[in-house]
Amino acid sequence: MKIRINRKELAKHIQIVQKAISARTTMQILEGIMLKAENNTLTLTATDTEISIRTKLSCIVEEEGQLVIHSRLFGDIVRKLNNDLIDIKVENYNMNLRCGESIFNISTQNAEDYPDLPRIDEYKKLTMSASEIKNIVKKTTFAVSQDETRIIFTGVLMDIKKDYINFVALDGFRMAIQKIEKEVDFETSIIIPSRSLNELVKILEDDYDVEIHISRNNIVFSFNNTVFYSTLLSGEFFNYNGLLRDNHDITCDVKKSEFQSAVERASLLAREDRANLIKLNIEDSSIEIKSNSEIGDVFEKVQTSNVNENLKIAFNSKYILDGVKILENEDILLNFTDSVNPLIITESEDDSYIYLVLPVRLAG
Amino acid sequence: MKIRINRKELAKHIQIVQKAISARTTMQILEGIMLKAENNTLTLTATDTEISIRTKLSCIVEEEGQLVIHSRLFGDIVRKLNNDLIDIKVENYNMNLRCGESIFNISTQNAEDYPDLPRIDEYKKLTMSASEIKNIVKKTTFAVSQDETRIIFTGVLMDIKKDYINFVALDGFRMAIQKIEKEVDFETSIIIPSRSLNELVKILEDDYDVEIHISRNNIVFSFNNTVFYSTLLSGEFFNYNGLLRDNHDITCDVKKSEFQSAVERASLLAREDRANLIKLNIEDSSIEIKSNSEIGDVFEKVQTSNVNENLKIAFNSKYILDGVKILENEDILLNFTDSVNPLIITESEDDSYIYLVLPVRLAG
Repeated sequence: MKIRINRKELAKHIQIVQKAISARTTMQILEGIMLKAENNTLTLTATDTEISIRTKLSCIVEEEGQLVIHSRLFGDIVRKLNNDLIDIKVENYNMNLRCGESIFNISTQNAEDYPDLPRIDEYKKLTMSASEIKNIVKKTTFAVSQDETRIIFTGVLMDIKKDYINFVALDGFRMAIQKIEKEVDFETSIIIPSRSLNELVKILEDDYDVEIHISRNNIVFSFNNTVFYSTLLSGEFFNYNGLLRDNHDITCDVKKSEFQSAVERASLLAREDRANLIKLNIEDSSIEIKSNSEIGDVFEKVQTSNVNENLKIAFNSKYILDGVKILENEDILLNFTDSVNPLIITESEDDSYIYLVLPVRLAG
Repeated sequence: MKIRINRKELAKHIQIVQKAISARTTMQILEGIMLKAENNTLTLTATDTEISIRTKLSCIVEEEGQLVIHSRLFGDIVRKLNNDLIDIKVENYNMNLRCGESIFNISTQNAEDYPDLPRIDEYKKLTMSASEIKNIVKKTTFAVSQDETRIIFTGVLMDIKKDYINFVALDGFRMAIQKIEKEVDFETSIIIPSRSLNELVKILEDDYDVEIHISRNNIVFSFNNTVFYSTLLSGEFFNYNGLLRDNHDITCDVKKSEFQSAVERASLLAREDRANLIKLNIEDSSIEIKSNSEIGDVFEKVQTSNVNENLKIAFNSKYILDGVKILENEDILLNFTDSVNPLIITESEDDSYIYLVLPVRLAG
């Protein structure tokens, strides 16, 4: 292989595929990036077998070829070089890399030993914008389960119906649902590992459409000369619709920033050894928030519209804060039923996002 | 105690004294800040017995008093409150704190149990600007020893002569000396813990003079309503002058950024298990920098003025980079004697800073 390539472009594409390199791999070849040069194009591929990324960029190919090179070392070298152009020549598993006054020789591995990317035969197809995907990931992945023994709940459900898609994450204490209006010509449900979604958004830029292909075992995102593959999780997800109800006895409208900062302050005394317990007392036109520990107690008060019923209810403040923090609207609704049913948090002007938190039942 | 105080000012002053609070203290009272209200002034004090800080701010004192309050909790509460003014009232070891709709009650401890600050009886005095101190700390503390068994080398020597002061840090592999021209009416040598200097600069702003008092066991920095105490380290420092020599056989002038980035790239292959070894070959008008490991090798070349002698010499690249990175001037000098004597790095236009690195002796 012999190529001449723009350094900054190469650095950018190395960074893209590095999102598929796991720090914890035990297979040495998976610490590498596969490079393939042909038709004046360099193709970079990396995989940890769950996430795979392939990306292409133009370069001058004087001699075709392919190889595997250590990802971190190659990335560090290209990033730290000074000149605009890099000349790369590979012979006998040695990569000779020249840029300005710098000369590197690095051993490479055989591209034949590199695993194949997933084959996507039968698939279903839809399109979403990159900014839509970023919003979905921000609103859902934080709520997935951290418990690796119930692996499907570490993923985000993508529940595709004829005219909308629900993205659902839950961990047994809270649930986040982002709904997207979209006409699709098929219905299906898949579970995407949340790690894949979090890595995907790191390489998405805001201004293009993303083609999505869904096969039996994989989801593939294509954009901007890059293809991002993720395996899917298989298993039965939770019937999340059963948790939702429309008729709430008590609906409080509050200012997001006021409510959030009051809960944050109350949390200062709701220490972790007490499960971050805060107590809400809803009465007339205010929500009183209390918490205490050995060292002291705190009372906060947030204004709301007049409510006709009183309610005392307790929560783990972390779960409330996680969901409130990511809301963009300043006007939000807290929908309560009673002290044992979930609190459902929504934005006043936009019903596409639902965040649900289970209360903590207090003894007595 | 009963006071009304500006929230932002209080938050700022809490942050100042928190620099003296150790995360690792075993004495519960030292997790606290001592507050004392009198004469419409609140005084905050914190200490870890090595560093002590006292700072004052104005407030309305309706009732005098003193107490100790948990530092982190008090700081978090004041930082997260919303309104401009806080009302604080302490009765029976309970602090009641009101701000807008927030009410906190926090247990306090007895101020009588709080340790006294060092007494500074006989002292010597000088003045330096805050920016001068910041520059000294940046140029020296990184070079102190990390080895706690030779405790005095974890400090910075302040060697005060009649018309200059040398600040010296060394760890057996390299040495940094920052010289300050200053007329002082005494001569002495003290060793200041580097941790104290690093905490001090976090609370120094650029625009004022700092009064320095030196006693037998302490150094005290006074500025802007704040007094910062540090204990001194006692013991015999190294006779650093013996390492310096003026006549160098080979002096190379290089561009700092070029030299730094070439050494950084060479370091990519000089892995930690090889002591970051890089080899320099000085010949004619260039410095060749080489390094290698199992995975490959690298050659870098940096231009310099014509030198009349050739030299091969090896270094731990980390020690070179630490010293070069902090230089501000783009024109620097590398002063060599031979392959076993230290490299002395200076700035071309300014001889107030000297950075010295011992070479690595190669077998054969």
